[in-house]
Amino acid sequence: MNESKLVVIGGDAAGMSAASKVRRSFPEREIVVFERGKHTSYAACGMPYFIGGDVDSADRLVARSPEVIREKMKIDVRTLHEVTAIDTSAKQVTVHDLKHDQTLTESYDDLLIATGAEPSRPPIEGINAHGVRGLSSLQSGIEALEEISARKPKTGVIVGGGYIGIEMAEALLARGMHVSLVDMAPQVMTTMDADMASLISDYMSSQGVHVYLGEKLQRIETDRFGRATAVLTDTQRLPADIVFLGTGVKPNSSLAAEAGIETGARGAIAVNKKLQTSAPRVWAAGDCAESYHLVSQEQVFIALGTVANKHGVVVGTNLSGGDVEFPGVLGTAITKMNELEIARTGLSEAEAERLGRNFESATIRSHTRAGYYPGGGDITVKLLVDKDSGRVIGGQIVGAPGSGKRIDTVATAITCRMRPSDMMNLDLSYAPPFSPVWDPVQVAARRFV
Amino acid sequence: MNESKLVVIGGDAAGMSAASKVRRSFPEREIVVFERGKHTSYAACGMPYFIGGDVDSADRLVARSPEVIREKMKIDVRTLHEVTAIDTSAKQVTVHDLKHDQTLTESYDDLLIATGAEPSRPPIEGINAHGVRGLSSLQSGIEALEEISARKPKTGVIVGGGYIGIEMAEALLARGMHVSLVDMAPQVMTTMDADMASLISDYMSSQGVHVYLGEKLQRIETDRFGRATAVLTDTQRLPADIVFLGTGVKPNSSLAAEAGIETGARGAIAVNKKLQTSAPRVWAAGDCAESYHLVSQEQVFIALGTVANKHGVVVGTNLSGGDVEFPGVLGTAITKMNELEIARTGLSEAEAERLGRNFESATIRSHTRAGYYPGGGDITVKLLVDKDSGRVIGGQIVGAPGSGKRIDTVATAITCRMRPSDMMNLDLSYAPPFSPVWDPVQVAARRFV
Repeated sequence: MNESKLVVIGGDAAGMSAASKVRRSFPEREIVVFERGKHTSYAACGMPYFIGGDVDSADRLVARSPEVIREKMKIDVRTLHEVTAIDTSAKQVTVHDLKHDQTLTESYDDLLIATGAEPSRPPIEGINAHGVRGLSSLQSGIEALEEISARKPKTGVIVGGGYIGIEMAEALLARGMHVSLVDMAPQVMTTMDADMASLISDYMSSQGVHVYLGEKLQRIETDRFGRATAVLTDTQRLPADIVFLGTGVKPNSSLAAEAGIETGARGAIAVNKKLQTSAPRVWAAGDCAESYHLVSQEQVFIALGTVANKHGVVVGTNLSGGDVEFPGVLGTAITKMNELEIARTGLSEAEAERLGRNFESATIRSHTRAGYYPGGGDITVKLLVDKDSGRVIGGQIVGAPGSGKRIDTVATAITCRMRPSDMMNLDLSYAPPFSPVWDPVQVAARRFV
Repeated sequence: MNESKLVVIGGDAAGMSAASKVRRSFPEREIVVFERGKHTSYAACGMPYFIGGDVDSADRLVARSPEVIREKMKIDVRTLHEVTAIDTSAKQVTVHDLKHDQTLTESYDDLLIATGAEPSRPPIEGINAHGVRGLSSLQSGIEALEEISARKPKTGVIVGGGYIGIEMAEALLARGMHVSLVDMAPQVMTTMDADMASLISDYMSSQGVHVYLGEKLQRIETDRFGRATAVLTDTQRLPADIVFLGTGVKPNSSLAAEAGIETGARGAIAVNKKLQTSAPRVWAAGDCAESYHLVSQEQVFIALGTVANKHGVVVGTNLSGGDVEFPGVLGTAITKMNELEIARTGLSEAEAERLGRNFESATIRSHTRAGYYPGGGDITVKLLVDKDSGRVIGGQIVGAPGSGKRIDTVATAITCRMRPSDMMNLDLSYAPPFSPVWDPVQVAARRFV
């Protein structure tokens, strides 16, 4: 295996984590990475903050440039090279060199598909108009900011109230726009429960975002130059100088599917716990691949940078003579809107219901610090407990600065299959500037004890 | 048990948590609480912040006043009543009514000893001089601030570089004093390792605290009015208008010991996991009692508000028809000095060595947020792993705001007996304003994988 040749499709988190891991183990092994964009190893999660102005240069979002990867890591990374076909029998890929418009083939011994995900575009009239933007590659973020800087849009409409929608609302507010957010769901953040989500949308409204829920997108109105001018829902017309799509992502799995590689959850590439696909010596990692959910015990599609990096390390280890499995995910996620922190892990009520779980939930309001210590604020914590097993199966947190990262305690407790009584007795840290004497996650756990 | 009479000695965290729990279960049961001070249910941990000015009134540190406890909770709480003897055969206590200077006796069916701890006073000349202060009761904090307000001391010397010493350094700096801190140990925070402690003392120096380590306290110099004027160590004379002792605490267990009740770790009252003492129907909880350490598997003396509250709930539950055990502690603790957060859990290297553990440690430096996101700072994380069992046994964190509470993830992982590989694969939360894509505690865990 030492002398075998590794080809990686996709030069971002999962692909480069795996390639780096293999390179550290095998300084001489041939590694070729094809990346269809201009950039490698960039922080896609940082794009809303780049657009909003918290991050002053796109370069800062690049962890490792192609030059560094080539020169320091001795990895043959080829940007603007799009893999168009995989032949799993011949063990080779067909590659389109976008710069020179040439087609080439490259053989492999091991192939890692790390093609990521891309924003879903609802199939409505005008969805591809100028000024309708989704955040996919770093280039898409750069172009979005260029448009904002050049055209100075006054009104921004965000379609979709998930993480990206919430983060883009903060970003566009920071750019001085009149911001509307529309979602066909009756709540924002559908990965959380309605009671918690209402705290978020109320806060967003208080910050000046016009939030319209339960409105179905009908079409994007365009002018005679093909530029978006408004978003039309089933109830109103929202003028828009710029439109951002936060309608979720879909895995870039068509390349794999066309090669006969099995796909699974929501079309993501099916993998086992070693992250092997159905084709021999073909691996998949990151946003294009499935993960195992530790609580639902199902294969799921969760596109997050943390998972992509862990996937990359697992594949890289297995390609370096190791034999490791990726245990799975909880769907842990965190974001913020201005000063409101938002986090979740495990199952929501909707997910628990879909799975037929017999569960109960408790929601508490506490404080991020000792009540008498200045600078604290409210924190709301919700926990879900499976009544049959007695285990904690989900948690959600919304609150003032200092709230969100507490979800990690819940995620760790769920991973360990803790009961609420176990959580209540955890020896968590306390001092007045940091927490009430019972940490809010323990206050929530005590509701079940 | 419903009709039996409960007497509690000590009206703070442990005592009042237990009494409240019993009251909620048994609205009619007779509960008498004797408290030798004026105050009940106060936040002793808040005193440095009261003295420093972050908290503007001592009343805000009182969770429940004696009046509220008497009227709302129907608990017969008697302040300024000091229990002077326990007769475990006759099942009664002797009480000195300090206000009326009278002695009375009170019978009990169940007795809870929750007498807390008090600052150790090193046995040196001048230690009881005017102006030499330890923080024990809320009253001691009120008097300290009164002295600062009235006499406007210019120089403050803190003896002892533990939590209280560090917090008092912040407080006295905030009061505009020239602050020195002296400790006979070669480092501050002896519950942490020297490498981590040096980050703390370096920071304290940068903030203007004069830190003198490895200096042995010789005597307190006094003037002819018996007021402290300087702290003399084996190497120098530190002028002092006010002296604060942060030389640790000792359990208030003499009352129990004189009654023939067994004591254990560092003189704390010996208890089993139900928090029963050696005497029938006599319980002990909080800072006066032992706890079981989950990693060392020894009985230990750890005086902390979190433990006291949990002890109180365990005793209260057991006195309300329940049958629960307190699983134990990890010695988790957190504090800060200005903008530096400090936290620890589990075993330090010194503790692991004393226990003969075969361990290894790793220390990493990371960032509290994504490197490109503004407002973050450095965080240093150290983990200890037992080489025989492969489990994480200790963690220490020092860093910028947002660092400290990450110790809770480590504490939860240790409680679950996780290996570094388990920690590395935890689905912890990530977004640029909150963390690098690998949370710093996972970066540390990866060093062992």
